[in-house]
Amino acid sequence: MRLKDIGEDRVIKDLARRFAPEDTRLIKGIGDDASVTPGKKGQVLLATTDILIDGVHFKTSYTPARLLGRKAVSISLSDIAAMGGEPGFFLVSLGLPPNTEKVFLDELYMGMGSVARAHGALLAGGNISRAPMVLVSVTIFGQMSAKRVVYRSGARPGEDIYVTGTLGDSALGLKTLREQGSSALKKGPFRRAVKKHLDPVARVDPGRRLSEKGLASAMMDLSDGLLLDLKRLCEASRVGAAVEAARLPLSADMRRYSKVAGKGGARRMALTGGEDYELLFTAPPEKRRPIARLAKRLGLEITRIGTVTPKGIGVRDELGAPVKVGVPGFEHF
Amino acid sequence: MRLKDIGEDRVIKDLARRFAPEDTRLIKGIGDDASVTPGKKGQVLLATTDILIDGVHFKTSYTPARLLGRKAVSISLSDIAAMGGEPGFFLVSLGLPPNTEKVFLDELYMGMGSVARAHGALLAGGNISRAPMVLVSVTIFGQMSAKRVVYRSGARPGEDIYVTGTLGDSALGLKTLREQGSSALKKGPFRRAVKKHLDPVARVDPGRRLSEKGLASAMMDLSDGLLLDLKRLCEASRVGAAVEAARLPLSADMRRYSKVAGKGGARRMALTGGEDYELLFTAPPEKRRPIARLAKRLGLEITRIGTVTPKGIGVRDELGAPVKVGVPGFEHF
Repeated sequence: MRLKDIGEDRVIKDLARRFAPEDTRLIKGIGDDASVTPGKKGQVLLATTDILIDGVHFKTSYTPARLLGRKAVSISLSDIAAMGGEPGFFLVSLGLPPNTEKVFLDELYMGMGSVARAHGALLAGGNISRAPMVLVSVTIFGQMSAKRVVYRSGARPGEDIYVTGTLGDSALGLKTLREQGSSALKKGPFRRAVKKHLDPVARVDPGRRLSEKGLASAMMDLSDGLLLDLKRLCEASRVGAAVEAARLPLSADMRRYSKVAGKGGARRMALTGGEDYELLFTAPPEKRRPIARLAKRLGLEITRIGTVTPKGIGVRDELGAPVKVGVPGFEHF
Repeated sequence: MRLKDIGEDRVIKDLARRFAPEDTRLIKGIGDDASVTPGKKGQVLLATTDILIDGVHFKTSYTPARLLGRKAVSISLSDIAAMGGEPGFFLVSLGLPPNTEKVFLDELYMGMGSVARAHGALLAGGNISRAPMVLVSVTIFGQMSAKRVVYRSGARPGEDIYVTGTLGDSALGLKTLREQGSSALKKGPFRRAVKKHLDPVARVDPGRRLSEKGLASAMMDLSDGLLLDLKRLCEASRVGAAVEAARLPLSADMRRYSKVAGKGGARRMALTGGEDYELLFTAPPEKRRPIARLAKRLGLEITRIGTVTPKGIGVRDELGAPVKVGVPGFEHF
């Protein structure tokens, strides 16, 4: 049996089962955005690790080193954000071909530093190793009040489902980069989508406020596409979901794309496109007004896209007809 | 300027300078075996990350998956040991080709689990990603009393220099594996050296006791060869070192090898061979007896190999003549 025939989620479930923590030192292990362990008085320590590999997660041909550095830190910060946490330290493991120019490394670190500073994260260490291609592995720690951690498992039937920002942009940006190369970052109708793909913003502040104010019952970040990630959240919460396709928030770039690709094509991209790094969360209906107020204060769209149901995941269009989607999102194998 | 022309140590020094911590949240950042940050009451948190890449740090052709898993955890544990710390949680970032057999993953995790359990470390999370080759990145946390952390920077002239275990075995094992393939693990005159290369033991307990009893003034683990690592320790402490070649501890395999390669060849291997993952530490002369007692209690050779000097690093043979060594150890670029 090969990994590509099994799929990432089954592999991870299998690991979670085998390494099931009988240990009180571990509050949450495998199966959420970050691990949760006891910290200083009333606090927990969050930790998460992510990797970007040239040719798999990005291509050096269209990715400026500075943006690669920014993205490597942002996607790990996004996991801390998804728990509602506050970023702390991070470690970087770099793999680089021996003929890498020093300026590439300088710009990579400049990019990492700029995102880290903006979120109060601090480079604590790491290592650099020879590798056949560029790879960047970031492990980041966070902390937060033990009472405020938002897991994937807290969603209950009848609650609302929300996302921050807009959906599908990163996939549209990637498609554009593949077709047009790195010039697509500077010009063209989809350059904001390209920017979102190369330089996603971790929703650290929104995540923290959603948790501090007790607004979110379950939360995760969107890395592999709304439908696949929603399925994971639903499985963790043992619930289902009904998504209203007409409510999916689309950016100006995505609306422009829907004129080219048709409504169905753009909708599919919003439902299945990976790497948006927006927050997906659930909340009871009585939280609608405080959530709207928070969105306004943050200057960030927070859109109610559906409802938690007892079981099954469905998407319906404006007429109530089911929307068919092929592959639900990005499978790593 | 390319990385191969600059060298790992200069790259890391440059990073350490640019990311110099003005921040009180960071007790020690780049430039030691692990980062050190404030933890629970009187404790510090240690963190370190390491990566193993197929074709760079090992070859799947001669490395059983179980031993790869063991080694990936052991080399990170070794960094915790080198501070005198107690292992806590670890995160694993795996890169695997899509046609990887499930049994490979199972054995890899079995190996990681076996080492982790032996040292009280706990798998807290991680991720699995498609990659063009097998790569394993492990980030491990540890904790210890803030007063007991042993840095690289504490060595003073006149102190003794020690190593645990024996030197050069891992390099001999690697050489044997390259010449004979994986069968060298089961038979042949150097199979213990091969085992040490594929399955090194992190000196967690020795490191912790050296720190708890206040025996070591400076400490690090030997990953890139005695001379190169000793140079790093000396630079951090702003001291020099005089090593007595005749005192270098050699295993039975290494003594056998010296009959084939000559005394000079074996000595060079002991001085420059990487990946022994033994502890290198310094201690004042008045600690000789307690260190000897500790070695006895642990059932582990701890050998005095030289003396800390004000500056310069030299190796002398039994007649006092300087020993010339070409490259001091493993440079990553």
